[in-house]
Amino acid sequence: MEYSMEKIIALAKSRGFVYPGSEIYGGLANTWDYGNLGVELKNNVKAAWWQKFIKESPYNVGVDCAILMNPQTWIASGHLGSFSDPLMDCKECHERFRADKIIEDYMQENNVSIDGSVDAWSNDEMKKYIDEHEIACPTCGKHNFTDIRQFNLMFKTFQGVTEDAKNVVYLRPETAQGIFVNFKNVQRTSRKKVPFGIGQIGKSFRNEITPGNFTFRTREFEQMELEFFCKPGTDLEWFEYWRGFCRDWLIALGIKEEQMRLRDHDKEELSFYSNATTDIEFLFPFGWGELWGIADRTDYDLGRHQEVSGQDLTYFDDETSERYIPYVVEPSLGADRVTLAFLCAAYDEETLEGGDTRTVLHFHPALAPVKIGILPLSKKLNEGALKISEELSKYYNVEFDDRGNIGKRYRRQDEIGTPFCITYDFDSENDNAVTVRDRDSMEQVRIPIAELKAYFEDKFRF
Amino acid sequence: MEYSMEKIIALAKSRGFVYPGSEIYGGLANTWDYGNLGVELKNNVKAAWWQKFIKESPYNVGVDCAILMNPQTWIASGHLGSFSDPLMDCKECHERFRADKIIEDYMQENNVSIDGSVDAWSNDEMKKYIDEHEIACPTCGKHNFTDIRQFNLMFKTFQGVTEDAKNVVYLRPETAQGIFVNFKNVQRTSRKKVPFGIGQIGKSFRNEITPGNFTFRTREFEQMELEFFCKPGTDLEWFEYWRGFCRDWLIALGIKEEQMRLRDHDKEELSFYSNATTDIEFLFPFGWGELWGIADRTDYDLGRHQEVSGQDLTYFDDETSERYIPYVVEPSLGADRVTLAFLCAAYDEETLEGGDTRTVLHFHPALAPVKIGILPLSKKLNEGALKISEELSKYYNVEFDDRGNIGKRYRRQDEIGTPFCITYDFDSENDNAVTVRDRDSMEQVRIPIAELKAYFEDKFRF
Repeated sequence: MEYSMEKIIALAKSRGFVYPGSEIYGGLANTWDYGNLGVELKNNVKAAWWQKFIKESPYNVGVDCAILMNPQTWIASGHLGSFSDPLMDCKECHERFRADKIIEDYMQENNVSIDGSVDAWSNDEMKKYIDEHEIACPTCGKHNFTDIRQFNLMFKTFQGVTEDAKNVVYLRPETAQGIFVNFKNVQRTSRKKVPFGIGQIGKSFRNEITPGNFTFRTREFEQMELEFFCKPGTDLEWFEYWRGFCRDWLIALGIKEEQMRLRDHDKEELSFYSNATTDIEFLFPFGWGELWGIADRTDYDLGRHQEVSGQDLTYFDDETSERYIPYVVEPSLGADRVTLAFLCAAYDEETLEGGDTRTVLHFHPALAPVKIGILPLSKKLNEGALKISEELSKYYNVEFDDRGNIGKRYRRQDEIGTPFCITYDFDSENDNAVTVRDRDSMEQVRIPIAELKAYFEDKFRF
Repeated sequence: MEYSMEKIIALAKSRGFVYPGSEIYGGLANTWDYGNLGVELKNNVKAAWWQKFIKESPYNVGVDCAILMNPQTWIASGHLGSFSDPLMDCKECHERFRADKIIEDYMQENNVSIDGSVDAWSNDEMKKYIDEHEIACPTCGKHNFTDIRQFNLMFKTFQGVTEDAKNVVYLRPETAQGIFVNFKNVQRTSRKKVPFGIGQIGKSFRNEITPGNFTFRTREFEQMELEFFCKPGTDLEWFEYWRGFCRDWLIALGIKEEQMRLRDHDKEELSFYSNATTDIEFLFPFGWGELWGIADRTDYDLGRHQEVSGQDLTYFDDETSERYIPYVVEPSLGADRVTLAFLCAAYDEETLEGGDTRTVLHFHPALAPVKIGILPLSKKLNEGALKISEELSKYYNVEFDDRGNIGKRYRRQDEIGTPFCITYDFDSENDNAVTVRDRDSMEQVRIPIAELKAYFEDKFRF
């Protein structure tokens, strides 16, 4: 069953997953703050990525690089030259638009299909198409646009006391470049041999013209990127490996096959340096959206950095006595996007026996923000229940709740996706046992208090 | 025994704790990247804070707010008006200086002591003092300075397509304000009652004129802040509580009493709104440096936001039927600083029996980047050792190392602070047991492979 974004956003706001940023000041366009549950959910998503991609991987290590980088980085990566959107203004109503989006919308409305993507057109080609088809301003309906100019998407600021050109720095538009510039450092200090990978989780910034869809596309966002370095010629093999690995990670955490599709780029869509690219897309309530871009980027990135920096970024393979610039396979995942995907995938409204309904988030236990709800049947039983809460909080994020009738408390824990609830009742005082209720099956089992830790031991692993 | 920063920095660079940022491009002043070990160390530090301040605390919950906030926030907080350094230029050599620092250096050299701090002086007072004492330019020795002007320390950028005033946004200079503007949201969604706290870990940015001392003072840095909301009148009690709690956290993670001091601000040093402030300082190789500022900020922050936003930020206490703006106790800790403190505190060079020396990082096991080194005595034994590595990597960050003689491998693990090494030897194939070596005592015990997981169970807790 599918639910609307409105329902999911309403739950997110009312239960402390996500609030509009700076809300008491009327917000700041397209910024969002993770609330008391959202921060735990997103932290769990990041921890699950780190666990499988870094800790358990025999190949990979991590880094955590600065957001502010030497601007030469963005010359090498191409972001200073060509990381831009084509903008134009309506001369009548002074609204500003992305030319490519206006063309795409026009094509969709009129069922026009083309080879490749409007992305690849020049400004002149776009202008010409708009004029020839007399595409109207979406706001005022007139057709009187300025020329199209490229608007760079990097946020610019100044480091140091004067706002002159030599002090310009940019907020990184992706975490990948921090990895590339440290390729030699990490290879040296980790003593890894090719093939190996370097992963990073961190904030990136893109001054998008048309952000939207809640936390799906935001100007400030968090990425989880892996750059996997391999020997040229083995890249397509590794591409397949990581493509499958990423897919399996999503499945293991509860995304269903039918909510997901792997869209391989065809030749026209591929970047000139890429041997293969696949987007893993998720079916959001607003349509298919890209979660993960997995790209075989060949030696483009290290090659560019070698060229611009003049540093030797080759790798010497001492088994084959060959020297080469490693090829790179890059699985790049948006932390906010995939967190939103897990939230959408988890959302459900169920009719229970007897006709009652419940809203429930079927999070994988590893991702659930609260692992265990601890509910004394009466406030008179708080002392014993609090003892359990204190003990289990050493291992898990627990929530103690002694307010309202037990049915309402179960509903509330269902609604925030808590996989287990412990009910401490009057018998517990005598039999030193509690009832553990499963969120999904709603079945209850009686467990001795002394065995709780062992009972939960493997419940939150994946 | 004390060691120089040079030694610690050299180890940090050579072993993958910290590299200079954008190094292949000659760096970017005062940025640093955490390497393959540094990222694990810093993540462990952050996890240890979250564990005790959020997860285990019956009072506190977390948030994760956007770095970009509505600029009204900085009007309310005072950062737009007065978060600035007093700057002046030498007219002779065109170097730029902080006037307060030049005066402080002069006073120190000449053993002048004053009541309070130069911080509190006006520009005119500083200029007058510099002129009266004919303080010379530290670079060229002349005395010919410009007037002093205030330089705001917030990084400024533009969100949206035009660089005009209405699109100006700032990179947050502290994480605290994200918490204050969300006070009502979090109180509502978490259903917490005062007293309760909200914690956040995240990046902040300050365009410091004189950053330095490795990762101690950087323009881009990470904070771990708690804002604890309590009833007016109970604030000093809670201030004492959190002051002790912070101190205990450092001690529990291995900082020694003699490396730490709690410096209470006297009346002159206190901000006008603060009832009490203590700095927890650590003895770095370069001298005492502030790690943690713990401040009783009364109702200043929520009061200012209420005034500027026009929103009601009062709290209704339904037990006493009183309505008030909660007082705030704020323990604010620098994640990079305290990570550096743990690194400095852990560093040691020891002479062993027989006269050999070793460099060792005595990290608390909870903080150690690699928990367990797995060392097959011979490459012939890799298969069995790799099996152990694979199993334990589900729970801990492990490092498999089969290169070089076993003594050298122990030295290397000591040098990166690995608390335990497992040696898999020829007997292991028959007795299904391995030797576990303790980093600090260097004692070895024989443990059955099947019992390893249980053996390590509580070793990394704190």
